[in-house]
Amino acid sequence: MKRVVIVGAGFAGLQAMRALARQSVEVLLIDRRNYHLFQPLLYQVATAGLQTDEIAYPARALVRRWPNTHFRLAEVCGVDLAQRQLLLANGAPVPYDYLVLSAGSVTNYYGLEGVQRLALDLKQLGDAVVLRNRVLCAFERACQARDPAERAALMTFVIVGGGPTGIEFAGALSELVRHVLTRDYRELDVHKTRIILLEALPQLLSPFAPKLQQYALSRLQHLGVEVRLNTAVSDAQRGRVLLKDGSEIATHTLFWAAGVRAAPLADALQVARGRGGRIVVRPDLALPDHPEVFVVGDMAYLEQDGAPLPMLAPVAMQQGRYVGRAIIQRERGQPLPPFRYRDKGAMAIIGRNSAIARWRGLQFSGFLAWLAWLGLHLYYLVGFRNQLLAIIDWGYQYIMFDRKVRLITGEGKDGCTGDTL
Amino acid sequence: MKRVVIVGAGFAGLQAMRALARQSVEVLLIDRRNYHLFQPLLYQVATAGLQTDEIAYPARALVRRWPNTHFRLAEVCGVDLAQRQLLLANGAPVPYDYLVLSAGSVTNYYGLEGVQRLALDLKQLGDAVVLRNRVLCAFERACQARDPAERAALMTFVIVGGGPTGIEFAGALSELVRHVLTRDYRELDVHKTRIILLEALPQLLSPFAPKLQQYALSRLQHLGVEVRLNTAVSDAQRGRVLLKDGSEIATHTLFWAAGVRAAPLADALQVARGRGGRIVVRPDLALPDHPEVFVVGDMAYLEQDGAPLPMLAPVAMQQGRYVGRAIIQRERGQPLPPFRYRDKGAMAIIGRNSAIARWRGLQFSGFLAWLAWLGLHLYYLVGFRNQLLAIIDWGYQYIMFDRKVRLITGEGKDGCTGDTL
Repeated sequence: MKRVVIVGAGFAGLQAMRALARQSVEVLLIDRRNYHLFQPLLYQVATAGLQTDEIAYPARALVRRWPNTHFRLAEVCGVDLAQRQLLLANGAPVPYDYLVLSAGSVTNYYGLEGVQRLALDLKQLGDAVVLRNRVLCAFERACQARDPAERAALMTFVIVGGGPTGIEFAGALSELVRHVLTRDYRELDVHKTRIILLEALPQLLSPFAPKLQQYALSRLQHLGVEVRLNTAVSDAQRGRVLLKDGSEIATHTLFWAAGVRAAPLADALQVARGRGGRIVVRPDLALPDHPEVFVVGDMAYLEQDGAPLPMLAPVAMQQGRYVGRAIIQRERGQPLPPFRYRDKGAMAIIGRNSAIARWRGLQFSGFLAWLAWLGLHLYYLVGFRNQLLAIIDWGYQYIMFDRKVRLITGEGKDGCTGDTL
Repeated sequence: MKRVVIVGAGFAGLQAMRALARQSVEVLLIDRRNYHLFQPLLYQVATAGLQTDEIAYPARALVRRWPNTHFRLAEVCGVDLAQRQLLLANGAPVPYDYLVLSAGSVTNYYGLEGVQRLALDLKQLGDAVVLRNRVLCAFERACQARDPAERAALMTFVIVGGGPTGIEFAGALSELVRHVLTRDYRELDVHKTRIILLEALPQLLSPFAPKLQQYALSRLQHLGVEVRLNTAVSDAQRGRVLLKDGSEIATHTLFWAAGVRAAPLADALQVARGRGGRIVVRPDLALPDHPEVFVVGDMAYLEQDGAPLPMLAPVAMQQGRYVGRAIIQRERGQPLPPFRYRDKGAMAIIGRNSAIARWRGLQFSGFLAWLAWLGLHLYYLVGFRNQLLAIIDWGYQYIMFDRKVRLITGEGKDGCTGDTL
């Protein structure tokens, strides 16, 4: 039986595996974590709304559903394309007949070293816990700060990037502060908390229609978020963020959601690369010189109708599914037509009862879009237990205006380590 | 208004605070963590049954219930008894009129340095996550081990201490292996897993009646746990545990549940100490020369009917409640009679449908004791959300023979760090 090795248990890898389950190939899924992570909800963990285990699903609980799927916990550090084998950080090389590379993306700091050293991001489960710790610690430290300027800096949160992640985090943070922390910190003037969202472009949420962009902006402002458009960051130093226009913001929490680039594994391959370090693929998502190697999801660079496909979960899922089917069809001697992304829409949540959504040319905002967001995210969350617990936590928050996961779980002496900014 | 400072948000500290809530004193609760931890269920987190947030409750969610209670996140490093102020690791000293010391206990390694360096324990939330990671990583590493002896050592788990913690962990680990990991690791002969429980005394669970000890022993053996009585550990080295009789066990996971001693804060006070480094207190739980300073819970040493009170949650809770009331009564000029511990019973769970319990001279074992254990632990878990989520997780496990929190959340490259043994 031919052996298909899939690198990465994200959206793309999982869909590829599902398409290959119960087929006459042997499938090995490799990831350096032992779980699938539902990345779009990381911001909820970072704002004390959901707990880590509710957005993660054990990889072995997935592969054990089918007889021909297996899992291996390992870090992949390269590919020997000529010998058709994967190189691991620890252990012997893994041979393959077909390879699916779906290692995803990492945060793009665009060469800003100060930012990379001091900012927080949201790509891994651990990042969300670190960000949550940082936010809660900032308030604890503000309680004990004697210098008013220091207290103000601790209570200032700067978010860079007006895409879905930045907006969702800004909205959720504002609600955490208003509904929960005002009651938790009676000794602080919590209403003085500043949440500043910086976007380099003249508008938020570029891929959405202007009407929805405007709605998101006004909802964020209603929540007390200071949105600054046309504002780019030039550097970060301990205690402050520097802007391109020469001004600066005193803060101890900088969250960077300004962009992503292909995972470092893409650097290890000697192949052509597109924007964001993504690997250029043929229309069937294979490498030009290696038809047995497929690249899918955020790692792949493919243009469609003159524009590169975006680095989004729906693209990754469709590509994963396509590649799984393509392998089966190729084994049968019936190649598939080229991959084509079908854009079914997009959505972003801003807060309680408010979201925006685009679906087949229609534009929604407000309560209806919010309901759609909830339903879709619950649907795609893997596992019944996770869905049930998320419903309970969301229901509890909605009714009680409270969030119970506001724990500082750092390992430092006072539980407030990791404060580097 | 007089100011009462409580150090430690454990069982004793919480009960003291509750007794002082809405009274005419100012109460400040200090802890180096921002949550109350339900320590008796830590072993469930370590065996992938419950998630961390289900056994932790934010301290500020507690203090905000009452107008006269406050919280401060800080590490206490000493007490200036003469000046009546607490010394903090960071920040200015905190003055008090009454002081309640309830900082609990830490693991007692009895001077075995090799064990202290290599063994895992279960006192903090982070410990439980580290232990869970270690257990899951051992199986992942066993999959990749080529040497059969190395594989056997990875699949050998040594637990030291036949008290409730050791027994509950051994039982839960055995069920995790049998019900879940056998299905997760099809490529491994999971049935070869060895769980070895070492106890230095001739019997398990010393404070229970011989009939219950015998029941626990036979249930553990039925679950495949190798129980070795009269067996003491002399040292640990990388990859093995050395026993007093000169033999050794090859293992990469050593869990130490052989005893506790008073928290290091007790060392910082220049006062008389009893066994386990506990602070000797008067019958009203105050320091002999400082009636305004109370010591409660695991930190306090008090004899009753010729024997020292045990370091258990019920003792801590009763002492905390007593001290809260004692302060109010003393303010009213009506001192309380001496503290007296009322032993209402004890219990320990071994596994599915099996536990032991002692209640007012009656002895229970089996399903009835198991139901009582479930009910009591749910009752004492703080917060409705935590109770609800624990019921769901336990119900899911009971019906599905599955546990969904088997995530390796370490920060290492391959998610398998912290493996020092």
